[in-house]
Amino acid sequence: MLTFNKHFLATQSSESKKIINDAVEVVKDEMQSERVGYYKLPTLSLDFIEQLKKIDTSSFEQIVVMGIGGSSLGIKAINTILRPITPNAKEIIFFENSDPLTITENLVKIKKEKACFFLISKSGSTIETTSTFKTIVAYCKIDMDADNNRIFAITDKGSSLSVFAQHHKFHEFNIPDNVGGRFSVLSAVGVVPLALAGYDMVKLLNGAQDFIASFFDGKENHLLEKAYSFYENSKTQSINVVFSYADRLEDLTKWYVQLWGESLGKIDTNGNRVGLTPIGIIGAVDQHSFLQLVIEGPKNKSLTFINIEDFKNDLLIPDITLYGIEKTNFINGKSFTTLINAQCEATMQSVIQSGVNTDAISLDSISEKNIGALIVYFELLTSLLGAMFKVNTYNQPGVELGKQILYKNLENS
Amino acid sequence: MLTFNKHFLATQSSESKKIINDAVEVVKDEMQSERVGYYKLPTLSLDFIEQLKKIDTSSFEQIVVMGIGGSSLGIKAINTILRPITPNAKEIIFFENSDPLTITENLVKIKKEKACFFLISKSGSTIETTSTFKTIVAYCKIDMDADNNRIFAITDKGSSLSVFAQHHKFHEFNIPDNVGGRFSVLSAVGVVPLALAGYDMVKLLNGAQDFIASFFDGKENHLLEKAYSFYENSKTQSINVVFSYADRLEDLTKWYVQLWGESLGKIDTNGNRVGLTPIGIIGAVDQHSFLQLVIEGPKNKSLTFINIEDFKNDLLIPDITLYGIEKTNFINGKSFTTLINAQCEATMQSVIQSGVNTDAISLDSISEKNIGALIVYFELLTSLLGAMFKVNTYNQPGVELGKQILYKNLENS
Repeated sequence: MLTFNKHFLATQSSESKKIINDAVEVVKDEMQSERVGYYKLPTLSLDFIEQLKKIDTSSFEQIVVMGIGGSSLGIKAINTILRPITPNAKEIIFFENSDPLTITENLVKIKKEKACFFLISKSGSTIETTSTFKTIVAYCKIDMDADNNRIFAITDKGSSLSVFAQHHKFHEFNIPDNVGGRFSVLSAVGVVPLALAGYDMVKLLNGAQDFIASFFDGKENHLLEKAYSFYENSKTQSINVVFSYADRLEDLTKWYVQLWGESLGKIDTNGNRVGLTPIGIIGAVDQHSFLQLVIEGPKNKSLTFINIEDFKNDLLIPDITLYGIEKTNFINGKSFTTLINAQCEATMQSVIQSGVNTDAISLDSISEKNIGALIVYFELLTSLLGAMFKVNTYNQPGVELGKQILYKNLENS
Repeated sequence: MLTFNKHFLATQSSESKKIINDAVEVVKDEMQSERVGYYKLPTLSLDFIEQLKKIDTSSFEQIVVMGIGGSSLGIKAINTILRPITPNAKEIIFFENSDPLTITENLVKIKKEKACFFLISKSGSTIETTSTFKTIVAYCKIDMDADNNRIFAITDKGSSLSVFAQHHKFHEFNIPDNVGGRFSVLSAVGVVPLALAGYDMVKLLNGAQDFIASFFDGKENHLLEKAYSFYENSKTQSINVVFSYADRLEDLTKWYVQLWGESLGKIDTNGNRVGLTPIGIIGAVDQHSFLQLVIEGPKNKSLTFINIEDFKNDLLIPDITLYGIEKTNFINGKSFTTLINAQCEATMQSVIQSGVNTDAISLDSISEKNIGALIVYFELLTSLLGAMFKVNTYNQPGVELGKQILYKNLENS
């Protein structure tokens, strides 16, 4: 179960109601017209899990994922947060960046005879992904025809990667045209490799579906108030900090940074530059790093706290007295779960007292259902904000220039 | 060697010159008066390396570091970036957060008979660090008297941790009073565990010292122009993004986030909230995540690119043609080092073209000398900016309230 709390006053005016209602209409229209596809992924993607059962995956002990951005961040986020409750999940090795040291380090971890290979690219020709694949083919001496049963391609229908996959008869799964890369975690992109790894993706998809249904049933109005508050204050509170009190939520906040940054950082229909800057930090670590700036620095931030009430881990701080440091004895006999949640609560209180707009998301535990709900929570919030900002939430025209310069520079070098 | 480039126009007015000169005077005075101690660490800390030679550390194959914030971020940053050139460095296990899952996972990695234990806390009673130490004592059945030869305490003279260390005769190293936690990486905090691990800390300290000497000799004026530009534009460009094109620089950017956030996020002498929000991202990965927001979103950011010209790694993209994806063949035969640096250059050009204030730091290679210089580069920049902002760069009053609330809540629970 997820519990949502907001510690700021929502504006209740006829203007705010109109902006909220308009945004809800936009989102409903995106969903009903199927112009935007991610809303239906939790039901559509169940089918991939059935398809996967027809493939003999018994010899695969290791999953090698080649993908970057929307083709890796969501898979990584779920793999990291659900592993404590799925300790037997197969190892996943991620090849994302073009960093030669990381690629070299990861290559030696591959056990070719026990590995399957996922080539994930919506467009099909992502330079990091295709370059890494070529390197793995050479390093592992993969015969693309003889080894085609261990190669999976996830891409758009008709993409260059799809042509490649069909030529060699790889396993192929497609991303719907109306689902962008950063909204694709619940498409084949995330569902196929994670289900193959052993995660219960049915439960995760059901958790996502329940939350989406609840939202469209008008039962998640806290989301509307939060989106409106962010929109209303976007000029002064241009930064949203997601402060998660669990190390294993760090990869989820990286996924959120892409979702939020690429979706909302746009030129709106009036030609204005809009958007909110996303930052992910981890408690209690970043109390010792970022908190001072939040409390005393410019009031240009909102804060979203995330905590996990029950880590299902009963590690206690032993009843040991350290000579000279007896003043820390008050914590003895308490659990680390108690400590980290008390730190979250105390930090939140101090931030609220300093006048920062704050809201909180509490997970009763780490579960597939909760993570599914949390993912669509952030996706719906993004869509609502995009509608309020009057931007195209689903494209990313700003990154094209860099790609053109790269291709020109490299082809001439 | 480090090369610095700025792609923005520095203001040249009599006012800017006065502000720059005043800041340089403040920094010189901090150094000469010894009010601020980090400037002299690169020479003072050489002594720790000699002291360490007198301790028999031959049986230690593993270093367990208990510390958080300034007592871990710098050690982690250096351990991560220098490991590729120091492959035989001893393993370091970090206990930082109060996350029960991470602590449980790390406990089983400790090999008690082969480990030494570093308890690092400037104040001496940091709750995460003392709680973790108690847990390790119980888990590893450490006898604090019999095992005192494998326990190291790094703390302020006279702190509660110092009292504790002397009671059990642990090895003790002190942090100078005039060196704050986030400026302490080149004190015993970083130098002792990293030298014990096998890193060449003499070279690193020398690299830091050379850069500090060069700065005070007036040969690093690019730093003054950069600091002034950040100060002058701080109202509109309230965010500084450090965009590093190397996976292993991620921990260094986390260190920078603390340094920058805690030092500058302050109420100034006129009662105004000032500071710049630091963000660390990694290329090429975050081109697929954060770049869109930089190019088209609000113009509230400056960007600092960091790249490594020569990774000393010749991994090539093989000359393999993927059927249907032949358009990526232009990269075949080139190295990943060429690719990632071309991506950095292309992204930087696209960002500059979109009108974002940009500067660049180029390391010719990963070396102790370069990392030492890079660390003090960021420290000097922080001190200069703190002087311009007229804040106390070296305290962190904003985090006290949260601590008080925590203690009250926990003691009453």
